[in-house]
Amino acid sequence: MTRAVARSHPNIALVKYWGKQDEQLILPAAGSLSLTIDAFPTTTEVTLDSGATEDTFSLNGIPGAVGQTARVSALLDIVREAAGVSTFAHVDSVSEIPTDAGLASSAAGFSALAAAAAAAYGLDLDPRALSRLARRGSGSASRSVIPGLAVWHAGNDEESFAEPVDGPDVRMVIVTLSTGAKPVSSREAMRICMLTSPYYSAWVDSTKWTLEGALEACKDNDFTRLGRITELHANRMHALIQSADPPIRYLTPQSVAVFDAVAQLRQEGRNCYATADAGPNVVVLTTPDDADRVARHLAGFGQTRVVGAGLGAAVIERGVAS
Amino acid sequence: MTRAVARSHPNIALVKYWGKQDEQLILPAAGSLSLTIDAFPTTTEVTLDSGATEDTFSLNGIPGAVGQTARVSALLDIVREAAGVSTFAHVDSVSEIPTDAGLASSAAGFSALAAAAAAAYGLDLDPRALSRLARRGSGSASRSVIPGLAVWHAGNDEESFAEPVDGPDVRMVIVTLSTGAKPVSSREAMRICMLTSPYYSAWVDSTKWTLEGALEACKDNDFTRLGRITELHANRMHALIQSADPPIRYLTPQSVAVFDAVAQLRQEGRNCYATADAGPNVVVLTTPDDADRVARHLAGFGQTRVVGAGLGAAVIERGVAS
Repeated sequence: MTRAVARSHPNIALVKYWGKQDEQLILPAAGSLSLTIDAFPTTTEVTLDSGATEDTFSLNGIPGAVGQTARVSALLDIVREAAGVSTFAHVDSVSEIPTDAGLASSAAGFSALAAAAAAAYGLDLDPRALSRLARRGSGSASRSVIPGLAVWHAGNDEESFAEPVDGPDVRMVIVTLSTGAKPVSSREAMRICMLTSPYYSAWVDSTKWTLEGALEACKDNDFTRLGRITELHANRMHALIQSADPPIRYLTPQSVAVFDAVAQLRQEGRNCYATADAGPNVVVLTTPDDADRVARHLAGFGQTRVVGAGLGAAVIERGVAS
Repeated sequence: MTRAVARSHPNIALVKYWGKQDEQLILPAAGSLSLTIDAFPTTTEVTLDSGATEDTFSLNGIPGAVGQTARVSALLDIVREAAGVSTFAHVDSVSEIPTDAGLASSAAGFSALAAAAAAAYGLDLDPRALSRLARRGSGSASRSVIPGLAVWHAGNDEESFAEPVDGPDVRMVIVTLSTGAKPVSSREAMRICMLTSPYYSAWVDSTKWTLEGALEACKDNDFTRLGRITELHANRMHALIQSADPPIRYLTPQSVAVFDAVAQLRQEGRNCYATADAGPNVVVLTTPDDADRVARHLAGFGQTRVVGAGLGAAVIERGVAS
């Protein structure tokens, strides 16, 4: 039996992925930009088992639910088809994302799975191909394959991968407000927005030129412009979500208070800009100089954690299973 | 000297006016629907003075600021031109809107002014013509001319007036959260949205069919549908405003908490839906049966006041000044 272990980290988007042009291939309606962070890795082991009659999946030692295992298996099918191998596998994942961090686990999860599965099944994929593979598991996983700042291109199956972007040295302060389950999953909310929001097509268009601006800001090493775009764009994503029918709101009164506190910190001269994904937690984009001060200032709202640019997906062990 | 006194009440929109197609004539980009309420009237006296060399204006006994007086004078100019009279006038207004109610004063103010000025200058205007005149002072004033539920039509100068709409018997609970000045005036915020939001044209389109739905709900006496539309549409207006560059947010953490509380009350079987204008206060559309209970339940958030359908603009005194 061959096996491989890979590790990957979550990423947090500055320009968001929200809307698909192809549900099956997970092709995004617009490109996006994120930071793969240096905390909360997922480590995934894929072990081929010629005696197995189906794939198995466990997360933190607990057998995956049917739906989870099916998603894992669907990604393995793509790898098996490319490798010309039909052997089933055991997939064991350990996620270091604390349940209460409110970070999506699917990006790091499918990025680590793609890397481990490719290695275990003997595929030699370059980063672009690996990013494309991870994308099939979960769109944002395409970005977690890449270290640090990464742009994920829209386009067809061949064109839609993530790659590294040079840019300013940034930090993020993750402000954790809630442990509650999301009212609506982001996958479902994205679908509702596509179907019911009058703003959806304008959102997709604006994301395209927002990404262009963000990439220019990265090229110019212009933190302030990048931060300004990040916060503006987060507001537009949450505005889009709020415009769905029925309206969806991920930001709680506490989240709104953190956005206000970040604006206040800027008035006091700190370099910081707020964003939030499909949940109540707020992530603050800031500089190495200001990160600790921003984190201290926001500690009254919830748990804070300073993170920086992290590694992309990497195989950390491979060989023949015992 | 001839004089006239008129009274008019504020209105609260269920389908909002947010965006102009003509700044000069104050023609809205889309139609809107509101309830003229039975509280907080403005009473305005217009007295012609052949010896005066300019118009004067006072609000609650205090001389108006230059900008305020200029807006009053501009409306009087329209009346004078129609009447073929050039005499200046003294305008004295008493507004019963408490400063901390957070309700716009311009709708009742310009509606009362239009009615009093038309009477004082001897114009005999039917409600449509009076509504068109009031519109020139402040767009939403066109609706305060009309009692109860009123639709304000988009269109050209001739077509853009408000008129009564039959519909369910409703109440509103005004929840007053803040006494602070607005961060951005609604006039300015509207302009910023028109210039910078990628969602603006979709907002205008969606307002058009939202209004059609709301008018159908009124026709069918369908409170629930009207309420649902009201809350959905309020979310879309605040989403639009949040999508401006820079983002504008009128809803504070407290406002958001009231929207949540209203959703909770609905789950408990109350008929109530939240809306908010360009400010932090929340207005809850409800039924005569549920109004007191809703008000009691929300009293913890701020001052609450139950209002119903009020009278339109009316001349209450006219004659020769002493």
